[in-house]
Amino acid sequence: MLKLYYSPGACAMASHIALEEAGTDYELQKIDLRQGEQRTPEYLAINPAGVTPALATEQGVITQNVAILTYVAQTHPQAGLAPTEAYAFARMQAFNAWLASSLHPAIGKVLFSRPPLEGAVRAEALEQAFAKYDLAEQHLLVGPWALGEDHSVTDGYLMVFTRWARQADLLDKARFPRLNAHLDRVQSRPAVQRALAAEGLSAI
Amino acid sequence: MLKLYYSPGACAMASHIALEEAGTDYELQKIDLRQGEQRTPEYLAINPAGVTPALATEQGVITQNVAILTYVAQTHPQAGLAPTEAYAFARMQAFNAWLASSLHPAIGKVLFSRPPLEGAVRAEALEQAFAKYDLAEQHLLVGPWALGEDHSVTDGYLMVFTRWARQADLLDKARFPRLNAHLDRVQSRPAVQRALAAEGLSAI
Repeated sequence: MLKLYYSPGACAMASHIALEEAGTDYELQKIDLRQGEQRTPEYLAINPAGVTPALATEQGVITQNVAILTYVAQTHPQAGLAPTEAYAFARMQAFNAWLASSLHPAIGKVLFSRPPLEGAVRAEALEQAFAKYDLAEQHLLVGPWALGEDHSVTDGYLMVFTRWARQADLLDKARFPRLNAHLDRVQSRPAVQRALAAEGLSAI
Repeated sequence: MLKLYYSPGACAMASHIALEEAGTDYELQKIDLRQGEQRTPEYLAINPAGVTPALATEQGVITQNVAILTYVAQTHPQAGLAPTEAYAFARMQAFNAWLASSLHPAIGKVLFSRPPLEGAVRAEALEQAFAKYDLAEQHLLVGPWALGEDHSVTDGYLMVFTRWARQADLLDKARFPRLNAHLDRVQSRPAVQRALAAEGLSAI
């Protein structure tokens, strides 16, 4: 059976949601990042990079949301979680890779730097993060779903970062109306509510 | 015809190599990052994120190496540039996503921060980058090619960052023997030499 290593509320939530949307059987294994559990020898044997998510399959371990999301979609085609035509698939991949390499580090720096950022350094990091949210608001989010008319694994991935921003009171409704509406839309999905509940969270 | 927007020696080289390996027809359009050409209105109309690479196709523009590499592989299946079975494909995706979101920013911070990093700040950034190269050396690079017995688009992508490191005298042969051998192996491929030459570069 598939087994997802995750930390509550962290970016592995994207993979968690994809598994719920796929309607597949899987186990959850919590790795508490605040307790440093990603650095234990046991977990490093699963993912030597020492980060979540990791998905254990019968063939071996898959890391990185970008890879896990596509894997879940491709192995559960009946769930319709990703386009299959090459160009549409590439557009999804580009969105997911942008989330992983651009939006995630930008908002992560603002919210999770230790020690916390202060003053001008925080202001600059915040400005850079807002520029990424602006890009998503104005260009990347097609609507109503991330890729357009069809829901996909990208929706649950984008939601992780709009949720973090809303939680920190940074997702201003006037500046980011489309991202706010998208976040509400994603959080209203039953599969998303099940994933949130399993992580001890709820829609915000 | 496909058209690749690239900057010489920058990470778009991964997509450039993939197009050469695919043996397909394409045009190159240089976007000089040092001249800020990625910020012109003309280029922002192509990629509003203002970064390279971008691949213009008949259907529209694809951004992000992670997406372009897979697109080139999937649309040129005869070139055998990527596995197609779901788990093997996911392992490739995980490697590519790790390069984009982990190795690239780590070495990019060391080499391209403006103003340049100095003293303890540079030492810390360098230590963090070396930890990523250690991970690639000890765990991710299967050998002889990045994913194992079969060459793939991941090889040209990994090469971009081992090449940057060697150029900066950071790819120590004692610490990184397998990465050095892989870099030599990739640079010996005719398609890679053609891509390097087209960017005004050569094997190092």
